[in-house]
Parts: sequence; structure tokens; C-alpha cells
Amino acid sequence: MEYVFSDRVSNLKPSAIREIFKYAADPEVVSLSAGNPSPDAFPVEAITEISERIFRENPISVLQYSVTEGYTPLRNHLKEYMKKYHNTGNDSDDILITTGAQQIMDLCTKALVNEGEVVICEAPSFIGSLNTFRSYNAKLVGVTVEPDGMSMTELEEKLKANPNAKFIYTIPNFQNPSGVTMSLEKRRRMYELARQYGVLILEDNPYGDLRYSGENLPNVKSFDTDGMVIYAGSFSKVISPGMRVAYTIAPKEIFQKLVVCKQGNDVHTNIWSQRVCDEFLTKYDFNAHLQHLRDIYTKKARFCMELLDKYCAPNITYHRIDGGLFIWCDLPEHVDMPAFCKKAVLNKVCVVPGNAFLTDETEECHSFRINFSTPTDEQLEKGIKILGELAKDL
Amino acid sequence: MEYVFSDRVSNLKPSAIREIFKYAADPEVVSLSAGNPSPDAFPVEAITEISERIFRENPISVLQYSVTEGYTPLRNHLKEYMKKYHNTGNDSDDILITTGAQQIMDLCTKALVNEGEVVICEAPSFIGSLNTFRSYNAKLVGVTVEPDGMSMTELEEKLKANPNAKFIYTIPNFQNPSGVTMSLEKRRRMYELARQYGVLILEDNPYGDLRYSGENLPNVKSFDTDGMVIYAGSFSKVISPGMRVAYTIAPKEIFQKLVVCKQGNDVHTNIWSQRVCDEFLTKYDFNAHLQHLRDIYTKKARFCMELLDKYCAPNITYHRIDGGLFIWCDLPEHVDMPAFCKKAVLNKVCVVPGNAFLTDETEECHSFRINFSTPTDEQLEKGIKILGELAKDL
Repeated sequence: MEYVFSDRVSNLKPSAIREIFKYAADPEVVSLSAGNPSPDAFPVEAITEISERIFRENPISVLQYSVTEGYTPLRNHLKEYMKKYHNTGNDSDDILITTGAQQIMDLCTKALVNEGEVVICEAPSFIGSLNTFRSYNAKLVGVTVEPDGMSMTELEEKLKANPNAKFIYTIPNFQNPSGVTMSLEKRRRMYELARQYGVLILEDNPYGDLRYSGENLPNVKSFDTDGMVIYAGSFSKVISPGMRVAYTIAPKEIFQKLVVCKQGNDVHTNIWSQRVCDEFLTKYDFNAHLQHLRDIYTKKARFCMELLDKYCAPNITYHRIDGGLFIWCDLPEHVDMPAFCKKAVLNKVCVVPGNAFLTDETEECHSFRINFSTPTDEQLEKGIKILGELAKDL
Repeated sequence: MEYVFSDRVSNLKPSAIREIFKYAADPEVVSLSAGNPSPDAFPVEAITEISERIFRENPISVLQYSVTEGYTPLRNHLKEYMKKYHNTGNDSDDILITTGAQQIMDLCTKALVNEGEVVICEAPSFIGSLNTFRSYNAKLVGVTVEPDGMSMTELEEKLKANPNAKFIYTIPNFQNPSGVTMSLEKRRRMYELARQYGVLILEDNPYGDLRYSGENLPNVKSFDTDGMVIYAGSFSKVISPGMRVAYTIAPKEIFQKLVVCKQGNDVHTNIWSQRVCDEFLTKYDFNAHLQHLRDIYTKKARFCMELLDKYCAPNITYHRIDGGLFIWCDLPEHVDMPAFCKKAVLNKVCVVPGNAFLTDETEECHSFRINFSTPTDEQLEKGIKILGELAKDL
């Protein structure tokens, strides 16, 4: 049988990143290529306690079918929490629980973007989201990420040039992969441009709670008096990614379409994990837990930057971060970055080549991404030391 | 803001069934419209035990990110189990764990069907799958379900008339909603036709283990020497639907595309529930559990048919079933079925109007679907008695 796949999937090329990840599975290799939470960041005791209690008190409630919109108490608690602490969401919005934030990208593209229509993305941006947009044959148009967020001049040019753009995809806080945080001024300007050109914003905020220095900036969604912003929040980085629980706060009319799409996608999100997140949010001190995570990661992020200063300067430069899990490193312009990454793998350190995060993977790129949340301190030091040595030979 | 949705979603009409379900939420209403497992069908004790053990022994393993393909031991155990007990799957196939079987429908349509291409379905068929196909703008072509499965004459006509058909969607065992089981002869013939016309088969088998009378028939996938069949299995009806764990056994080349699509869809399925299913399958007597379920449902199915004989004959006729969770009831041809269903709801019994399951919901239809697994025996008797009384007035 010769299989004929859909045009969407035929166009999906296996990512360059995949080849790299194969090596990362080798236990001798130091993987700086993942994005997993640190093992000591999981609230294991609380989750164990909650789970045992649920099974003791009402097991059927987590085993039976549930509703597509999500567990109602969790939706209500999140609405309250996001309003109170982040001024995010209002009476024109509703909240949908999803199977990870990845599903939000899928549902939004499905509901909003016809094949060939444009999604405007930061360049570079999170490869998982880019691939989801691609899987619906959306046309990706990149806008350069500057140290204070995407270029607003370029954004306006791209909006003008692409009247069929459906949404602007942005990760305003500690962006993956660049680590960049969008300034308040740019957040406001982006919102204005979106309004002016009638293009929605998809605001993806998985790392917002993980700020290690500087002041919190308001979510773009907090300006949303016009129903322009779909907000994506997630428990993957702050409770557990294995549970696959995220949520989107969206204008009601969009929410309704997302619900219909989710019904056809997976009916509803695993209900045990929704219950666990709900109880953790309401019966435990969630904000204290977030502070605990910030303590862990602040230490790790600083340690990682010190190692880069110590072992890699001046050959590898990097962008200092205020939060998140990733650091974006630059090689000198004359260096063949993919060759450097391959050499690193052969020397048992795995990083992600920067072009993997571009809307066009074949574009020239001199950067690579490293992650500091997954490796131990020993692994971090070993890996970065090797990178530094390799960089000396350039 | 005036929202413009994608063509896919604009064409998705809110289902007629939704209006009905609103009434079913009323606790005074007897709902014969659901498809939930019976509360006493859940292996609560085993799941509690497994879950507690996992959290005691290796909590991080169910909280951290996992792989898209699914938990490797579960995939291996399922491969073995399905080969041993159902001769299903061979060396050319691979197995993917999904977030419920609904996701298999989604991934297969995404990977295989361009907008406007044809999916051939049984008429009537499972509304959840039909809506997923519709959500990709697939064109649904229905083939009449006869008492021994879909009409093979009609199937061949439709295959001839639709050279761009991408797959035949079938539920061969105790079909939802008709309750019909496809004969062995028709299974073989369908496979031959698929081969002849180069069209894949998507075999959906959520109820296969729930046979109450007669002999098991081989899965269509068990004939699959040519890589023509994608098999969809699920734990929703035999362990727990709230966990959202299902699996597809598909030719390797298709499997690979489904993995790429799933990566962009939800990264991976909740890993706690995959672990629970794996341990239940391997450390408990899964086949004894299935026998226990058959015991529960055989009793309930017989009781339901007795009630239909007692209260509804001869005004409402029905098709006797050998398994599954649904019974398909027919009203006399002169009766306005939707009006009857509305009247039933006003009298506090909720059933699903048969046209909801058609490829074209506006087609005339004189049938409705009832479910006997969710209501208690008392509710069943109360509900069916009311239906019988209403039918007398026709």
C-alpha cells in the first residue's frame, strides 16, 4: 500500500532538533537541550496526599467521563486567581481547561486559521507551537526578537503586508528560546497594532511565574478591553508537565469554538489531574510554592550564567535572563553553528541549534539554546566547561 | 471585534443532540442518552492501590514530561496482549498511546484527509467521530447499516463514486448507535473492497470486549496483510474514561505521521494514567475484570430488553444486541421522531434522536438511541415505562 498523506502533514518536515535529541538519550551525554522542570521542583508530597484523598473519598469522580470545558471548580478558582493576581480575564471571557498548552495552540489554529493564512510569530520562537501552526498549513511570518521583545516596526510592516494574518503568537515573558521579556511599552504597542489591524493576539505565558529578578510586567491580556487576546496559561512548569493541564482565557465567542474543537480532539482533559491541580491551588499555599520554585531556579540560573562567564567568555556570548528556563547563546558570526552543535554532541554535550526555532529553519543562525532546569549542577558545570573548550578552538 | 473563524469551524453546526443534553442535567430527568460506564464497573480498589504505589515508589516518573509515542512498557504489553488474544497487529505495525480514542479520529483525519476529501462512514455512526471528521472539512459519505453490518453493495458503489475517499470508518462490534455487529463475511468483504479500491479502513473497537452473547468475531485488523487497517482500541469502557487512555495499532508509516501530529496536539498523554493502565493490565487479572464487566452489563442489557418488551411493544420496536452499551429503537414510520423525543424530555426521559448520528442530520429518521449502562435499574424501568406510555398515544 502506498500511503498518501494530507497536504498538511506532507509539508511537515522532521525537525532538525530530532536528530540531536537521539544523542541526548545517551546517559553519558549532558543534555542542555531539554526543558523539563527540575526534579526537586515537583510538589510530590502534596500531590500524593491529594490523590490519596480523592481515591478515598470519591474515586468515581476522577474515573468517569467529565465535561469538555473542564472541571468547574478549577475553572472558577483559576478565573478568580488570574483576576486577583494578574488582572487577567474579564466578564467577556471564559476559561477552558486543556491537555497542556500545546493543545491551546492546536485548537486556536484549527478554529481560526485556514490553510495558507498567516500566523505572525516571534523569530525565534517555541518550536512546538511553530510545528502546530505548520500542521494546519498556516504560513508563518517571523518578526525579529530584540532585547526588549519583538520589533514593533517590523510587526507593523508584517501586519500591513499580510492582511490575511489571523493572530500574533507571542511569549512575552522569558521567551523560549531567546529568554527575552517584552517591555511594557511594546506590550501596549503590540495590543494597539493588533486592534488597529484587526488581528488577534495569542499570548503564551508558561514561564510568567518564574521571574528571578526585576519587576513583574502586566500580561497583554490585562489590557484586553476589546476581546483581542487569547491567553494561554499552564501548570506544566509550576506543578507538573506529566499531568498535561493548561488553561486558556479567551473571549466567549472564541471560547465556544475552542470547546467544539476540543470535544472532537480529546473530549476532555484527564479529570484526575484537573482535580489534583484544583486542590493544590486552593488547599495549599500555591504562592508559597511558586516562591519555592523561584528560589530553586534563581540559584540555578545564576549558577549557569556564572559558568558561561567563567568558561565560555568571550567566545560564546549570551543574553542575561530575568526568568524562565532557557539561555540563548551566540557564537561569533564566522562560526558554523550547526557544525559546532554537532561537535558538542560528539563531545557529549547536547544543545539545541538556534535555527530549529526559526520560521524558516534553513536561515543562517549563529545561536543555540541551553536549558539549566533539567541538568544537575555537576552536569551543568561539566557541559558548559566542554562548550567553552570547544569554543576556544573556533 | 468581529471574529472570523476558519472554514472548518464555521461549517461545524451545533449538534441537535446538545439541546437535549441540557435537559439531561436535571436530576429529575432519567437520562438514557449518555454512554458512561456503570459506576460499579470501575476497578476502584486496584487503581487506588496502583496509584498509591507509584507515588510511594517513583512519583517523578508520573509528574515529569514523557514521550509522545506513549509509555514504552504499556505499548509493549498492549502489542503482546492484542497479538495473543486478538491476533491484531504485526511486525509492520506500531502502537501509539492516545488521549482517548477521540484523539485517534482527530490524528487520522489530520494526517490523511485534505479538506473536501471523503470519509466513508456507517449510517448511522458515532456522532463524536463524525464531528471530528467534519472539523477538518472532510466530506462524509454514509453507507446504510444493515442487521449484519454496513451494506457491501452500497459500500462498493460509494467507493466507485468517490475515488478521493481516504478511509472507511467502521465500528464492527456492537456499533454505536445501532448495536449492530458486522458479520465475518462482511468483514472479509470490506477488507477486500478496501484493498481493491486502495482506501484505508479505520476500525474503531471500544466495545469489543463487552460481548454478552454469541461468538467473538475476528477484528478486521487481524486480516491486515497489506497495511490497510488502522485499529483504534480504548480503555474508556473497560477501565476508565476519565483517564483518557486509548491506543492505535497502525502501519508504521502511518504511525510515524500520527506521532508527529500528536506531538503538535498535546505532546503526550497523561503519564499517570498510562502507568495505571499498564499496571492494571500486567499485575492484575485483566481478563477476569473483563468477565466481571460482561457479567454486569449482560444483566443490564437483558433487563433493558425485557423492559422494552414489557412496556413498549409493539409501538416501539428495537434491535436485539449481543454486546455494547446501546440499543437502537424504531418508531412507526408515520411518527414524528424528533417530536416524540422532545415529548419524552418534557416527561423527564432523555433519549438521543437518531438523526444526530447521520452524516446528514436533516435526513428523515424514525429511530432513537437508548443507553442502559449509566442509569440504575430503577431509573431504567421508570424511563422505559414512560417511553412506553408515550408510544401508546401515538
